[in-house]
Amino acid sequence: MSKLDQIRSYLNQEKANIAVFSDPVTVNYLTGFFCDPHERQMFLFVYADREPALFVPALEVARASQIVNFPVFGYVDSENPWEKIKNGLPSVDSAKILAEFDNLNVTKFQGLQTVFDGRFEDLTPFVQKMRLIKSQDEIDKMMVAGQFADKAVKVGFDNISLNNTETDIIAMIEFEMKKQGVEKMSFDTMVLTGNNAANPHGIPGTNKIENNALLLFDLGTDMHGYASDMTRTVAVGKPDQFKKDIYNLCLEAHMAALEFIKPGVLASEVDAAARKVIEKAGYGEYFNHRLGHGIGMTCHEFPSIMEGNDMEIQEGMCFSVEPGIYIPGKVGVRIEDCGHVTKSGFEVFTHTPKELLYFEG
Amino acid sequence: MSKLDQIRSYLNQEKANIAVFSDPVTVNYLTGFFCDPHERQMFLFVYADREPALFVPALEVARASQIVNFPVFGYVDSENPWEKIKNGLPSVDSAKILAEFDNLNVTKFQGLQTVFDGRFEDLTPFVQKMRLIKSQDEIDKMMVAGQFADKAVKVGFDNISLNNTETDIIAMIEFEMKKQGVEKMSFDTMVLTGNNAANPHGIPGTNKIENNALLLFDLGTDMHGYASDMTRTVAVGKPDQFKKDIYNLCLEAHMAALEFIKPGVLASEVDAAARKVIEKAGYGEYFNHRLGHGIGMTCHEFPSIMEGNDMEIQEGMCFSVEPGIYIPGKVGVRIEDCGHVTKSGFEVFTHTPKELLYFEG
Repeated sequence: MSKLDQIRSYLNQEKANIAVFSDPVTVNYLTGFFCDPHERQMFLFVYADREPALFVPALEVARASQIVNFPVFGYVDSENPWEKIKNGLPSVDSAKILAEFDNLNVTKFQGLQTVFDGRFEDLTPFVQKMRLIKSQDEIDKMMVAGQFADKAVKVGFDNISLNNTETDIIAMIEFEMKKQGVEKMSFDTMVLTGNNAANPHGIPGTNKIENNALLLFDLGTDMHGYASDMTRTVAVGKPDQFKKDIYNLCLEAHMAALEFIKPGVLASEVDAAARKVIEKAGYGEYFNHRLGHGIGMTCHEFPSIMEGNDMEIQEGMCFSVEPGIYIPGKVGVRIEDCGHVTKSGFEVFTHTPKELLYFEG
Repeated sequence: MSKLDQIRSYLNQEKANIAVFSDPVTVNYLTGFFCDPHERQMFLFVYADREPALFVPALEVARASQIVNFPVFGYVDSENPWEKIKNGLPSVDSAKILAEFDNLNVTKFQGLQTVFDGRFEDLTPFVQKMRLIKSQDEIDKMMVAGQFADKAVKVGFDNISLNNTETDIIAMIEFEMKKQGVEKMSFDTMVLTGNNAANPHGIPGTNKIENNALLLFDLGTDMHGYASDMTRTVAVGKPDQFKKDIYNLCLEAHMAALEFIKPGVLASEVDAAARKVIEKAGYGEYFNHRLGHGIGMTCHEFPSIMEGNDMEIQEGMCFSVEPGIYIPGKVGVRIEDCGHVTKSGFEVFTHTPKELLYFEG
């Protein structure tokens, strides 16, 4: 069943006639057409029993019409988009309208309320659920994005030098990725040295790479609309035994979670599988974030792999496994792979080795 | 008057007690604290007659507390943020709450409605108006961002070669900028050669730089939270006379707008000042977008310099002036500077020459 048919089927189930989408990522997911309209308006209208309609800024009408096989209409900046929509849409019963409340701002919501008379209900959970289970085609794209993340982190490794700053290495990674055809990184690349890595939200700067310390890389690429995300922490010079112990503890937690994941277990249990390793060793307070986040067309999406989320893990779900231990002033480690749930386990998208790697400064 | 005091004063004027902000950029603008909470919750609560309160994910509490001088409270992923907010805020009369509807999604809106009993009204226009008029400090930051845009376009010029692709040049620009300490580009850098430049929303790719054609650079940097944005179109080899004529027509339109801008004229008149030059020459249909957009902490913000916007231009407003002429299959030109309105005119942030520059391929 096509994605649009899944929406139609849900509309019928909910006895609603119209679903409205304004999130550029969801519109891309459903139609293959991507446009960020910035402060302009873009809406996809999906009907229970007639063809959809796409409303875009005038500049995008021609391109959109080549991609989707249903009517596209637009407006120029000097026109009132709400009137244009009202006049351009077929008049159907709109007693109940479904919309993604998470991706609809109140201004657009109020605009749509001038177009439709009915009651709005939230479509966020249904779309999240659709996007949660990736198709083979989507998984293939995420594998490609993962391969490029592996290449990117390799560029980082190749440029480790005590003469380089965090920012120097980031520049080299992003340069090489762009040369290799990566459209964009899926988020701001992070290279964090020594104590800066001990901050879970540390910001890269002009710190020179520290010797006898750990060095953290957190990066990802966007390929064909799908994101990758990985973290590796490596040794520069000869870190002391404590740092190595913390690294190995984090790795043990990471592996424990990977081995635990399979259809039927709960998201909270996956989090616990890693967390209890770190807690047992007495460092629980230094692992102060959830174990993972969903990934797909965006780098952070449904589901959250964390305490309190009793969602059952299913085949086709894609998420990160990224335990971290951050001891301020001493050491910071995070090890992250994203992967997809298979029939019986979990397969990761990134394959850079995870035993502690040593580099000369 | 501090920015928070301006909000308080507006609350008093509107007889409201509470303003709620959820947009990371607005929170940064008002407090100096920036955090993108992704799918988590962050709100700034400003009261008419007591100190503000900032609600952030638990991980951000320490950092936020160092930056703002009022209470910060947080929640961990396993807690219900709305209950946490309700219990953490002082109980004051909340008959009327102001919020930025443009930057508040319906889910958060509904969450806030469980916290406050009162009626919500839109604060978007007031915040846009505040942000519209830049202080000298903001203008200084935008000048710095402009200087880096000039440097970036210079790197592009230095790498013009028939052996390079659009993407190669982009990679070199972004590499060099990162090395020079630019945190990030303010949007995806565009380098478009020949016919690709004739598409106003062309996407850079692995096209080699064309000889005897025009080459378009559209880029900007983000520095200290402020964006720059500029476009230059240059000649590679010996473009024919028609291309040069179109270039000069676009430049004439650009200069006509720059010279026209001063306090008291209307945004629509600024657009018309450039547009009529191009229309008079018979190419009006190929200038198919507004003349400009506001710029500041984001690259596209209030106001829109376009037909139909009868907003009066005032000292301190910052926006782009970017006429373009795109004749499919033939030639594409855009020339863009951003600047600020002075007492008597307009001063641009970018100073790369605008007469047609020639480069060997």
